[in-house]
Amino acid sequence: MTKMGGIELGQAKGSTSTPKRVLPIIDFILRLLAIVGTLGSAIVMATTDETLTFSTQFVRFRAEYDDLPTFTFFVVANVIVSGYLLLSLPLSFFNIVRSTAKNSRIILIIFDAAMMAFLTAGAAAAAAIVYLAHKGNARANWFAICQQFNSFCERISGALIGSFVGIAAFILLILLSAVALSRRN
Amino acid sequence: MTKMGGIELGQAKGSTSTPKRVLPIIDFILRLLAIVGTLGSAIVMATTDETLTFSTQFVRFRAEYDDLPTFTFFVVANVIVSGYLLLSLPLSFFNIVRSTAKNSRIILIIFDAAMMAFLTAGAAAAAAIVYLAHKGNARANWFAICQQFNSFCERISGALIGSFVGIAAFILLILLSAVALSRRN
Repeated sequence: MTKMGGIELGQAKGSTSTPKRVLPIIDFILRLLAIVGTLGSAIVMATTDETLTFSTQFVRFRAEYDDLPTFTFFVVANVIVSGYLLLSLPLSFFNIVRSTAKNSRIILIIFDAAMMAFLTAGAAAAAAIVYLAHKGNARANWFAICQQFNSFCERISGALIGSFVGIAAFILLILLSAVALSRRN
Repeated sequence: MTKMGGIELGQAKGSTSTPKRVLPIIDFILRLLAIVGTLGSAIVMATTDETLTFSTQFVRFRAEYDDLPTFTFFVVANVIVSGYLLLSLPLSFFNIVRSTAKNSRIILIIFDAAMMAFLTAGAAAAAAIVYLAHKGNARANWFAICQQFNSFCERISGALIGSFVGIAAFILLILLSAVALSRRN
């Protein structure tokens, strides 16, 4: 409690003081985790392509992630979100050092919410297409392409995991920020 | 400033006092807007089916929203989110009456974030399928079913609008809650 200085007025009520440093550190770790998740997702998805060994017809059987525009959106969303997370690290670190900071937390919570929505949109859209690739849809005459492209489908399914880890991290981040904002005074 | 009572300690700093009532009222209105959006989306989507007047082949040409599981998820997500919003209205109203409330705001911001993620997932997944229905995908041999089912496609596209209005409302709600939490002391 050395560096407190300044506003000691509101301290009387609700100063349990231990989570003062703990919450920002968890915040920082969650951001690192989310970076690993989203960046991993983007890389796994972007490097996905499969060429089938047999090619009986006149078309070459090759599946790439950008055959489906949704996966391009997925990669873009993951890259942008991991970029944002990288930029937010200094601000998060600032919260560890100066635990009374207020404005930086508000900025973070708002951008976190927006980025979570963006990442969720990318992941959910990709998940819908992955589901379709696995199961197909009889009514719409959409075939399950995974019956041909096994390794392709495994990779695009695996790429989703990192994104969903990122979404979970964002929900926890918003939770932490809300708690920190309320404890701050 | 008549009903303030209680904690006047922290009031000295940052008491611009005008947004004390304004923010919770906007919060309440945004929730109403989001209810209209999500419930409207759910109803429009759930009542979508189209039977084509011609039926040359042995199958009957009928398209319903639940032919595609993603749309069922979309309807469920919208119904759950509008139900949550309805339940959150009393809490939001409580914030108008008692502007110093803290815990109710934290609860709201956390659930808002979770529900926004849920709603975004539903809307994005549905949007991915709607896009596919409109454009199809040549590489995966998925045909654009909208060429046959015009009115069906118009309705499922229209149903997305309400959800995206809801998502925008949620982003603003989280923004408002963060600002309100920081001003509160």
